[in-house]
Amino acid sequence: DSKNNNILGGITMRRKVYTKDQILKAAYEVVENEGFSGFTARNIAKKMGISTQPIYLEFKNMSDLKNTLLDEICNHLYYDIFPEVRTGDTIIDLGLSYVYFAKEQSNLYNALYVQEYGGGKKMHDFSYNYFHQLIVEHPKYSKLSEKRINALHVGTWICVTGIATLMSSGIIAPTQDEIVHLINRTITNILEEEDTSVLDTL
Amino acid sequence: DSKNNNILGGITMRRKVYTKDQILKAAYEVVENEGFSGFTARNIAKKMGISTQPIYLEFKNMSDLKNTLLDEICNHLYYDIFPEVRTGDTIIDLGLSYVYFAKEQSNLYNALYVQEYGGGKKMHDFSYNYFHQLIVEHPKYSKLSEKRINALHVGTWICVTGIATLMSSGIIAPTQDEIVHLINRTITNILEEEDTSVLDTL
Repeated sequence: DSKNNNILGGITMRRKVYTKDQILKAAYEVVENEGFSGFTARNIAKKMGISTQPIYLEFKNMSDLKNTLLDEICNHLYYDIFPEVRTGDTIIDLGLSYVYFAKEQSNLYNALYVQEYGGGKKMHDFSYNYFHQLIVEHPKYSKLSEKRINALHVGTWICVTGIATLMSSGIIAPTQDEIVHLINRTITNILEEEDTSVLDTL
Repeated sequence: DSKNNNILGGITMRRKVYTKDQILKAAYEVVENEGFSGFTARNIAKKMGISTQPIYLEFKNMSDLKNTLLDEICNHLYYDIFPEVRTGDTIIDLGLSYVYFAKEQSNLYNALYVQEYGGGKKMHDFSYNYFHQLIVEHPKYSKLSEKRINALHVGTWICVTGIATLMSSGIIAPTQDEIVHLINRTITNILEEEDTSVLDTL
């Protein structure tokens, strides 16, 4: 590619190549520090100490970069964060992992689950698929209808999000046992309710 | 006060006086823009285009200023935000006002209810007192025990906070009717539960 070559007194200069991974790493750090409000080519390039051009060589546009980054983060949640065994019940453990993730990586949590123009729909789909997979493999819940699974997903998500948010400001400070109890009563209530249509249509 | 006087060729110079209200207004704007992480004498003085000295003439320290500001904000919530009539049921209307406040004044909401070192304990006490007052005046709930009132307060707070947070990121987008339904089912569940000790001890 002649664009990358430059004859200067017989010496061939080659432009430094920035890989997708290096750009994703810098983009991740920007989101971790500033959320998606700081997610601009300029900020990411600045973090790397380069111009914005290499970003547009590797990604079609900023939306392509954001989607690729969100896929990477979902992989991180899928393999490293959400499967951590805490009580042995996969659904309870997912709720606990979500609450602790909100506490321990609060900036990233806010970028994904709280901020406008954050993870949004993508996080919803990822969360639903993950939850659905756990439910069908769970001895207590495997026979539930799709509607009931959806109600259970949204209902427990509202509950753990409320807990995580009020914990972050120190308004409540539940122990792990208390969080388990709060998730359990939410599940029980949803399973015993006759009509859960308000939850399953959200 | 001789500190405020300065003889220069016979002309008495008087230092400009900054009132508590002017300082509180600037402090409010700082919190609204940056949350309590930006709550420093330096930032507030900068907003007013002055040195930090007048702040320390009016307030003992930054913690005194923060407490005074939080009292002012609680008054704003008490008189302007929370009492807005929407359905006619005071408890449902409080939940709706909280969710809409989170949506419409998201920076202030985050500073008060989400961020570490935000409103914290003060918001808890304000919220509990406000809720308690509505409950004892409410025809449906006036006979509840203190424990049940506390469980109802924490349980509905977790619910509306979860709704507000997931709405802010666009993960869910419930209508007003759906939010009312979600708050109602939460109240019904707490009133029907035999043992609500996990809620009332939070």
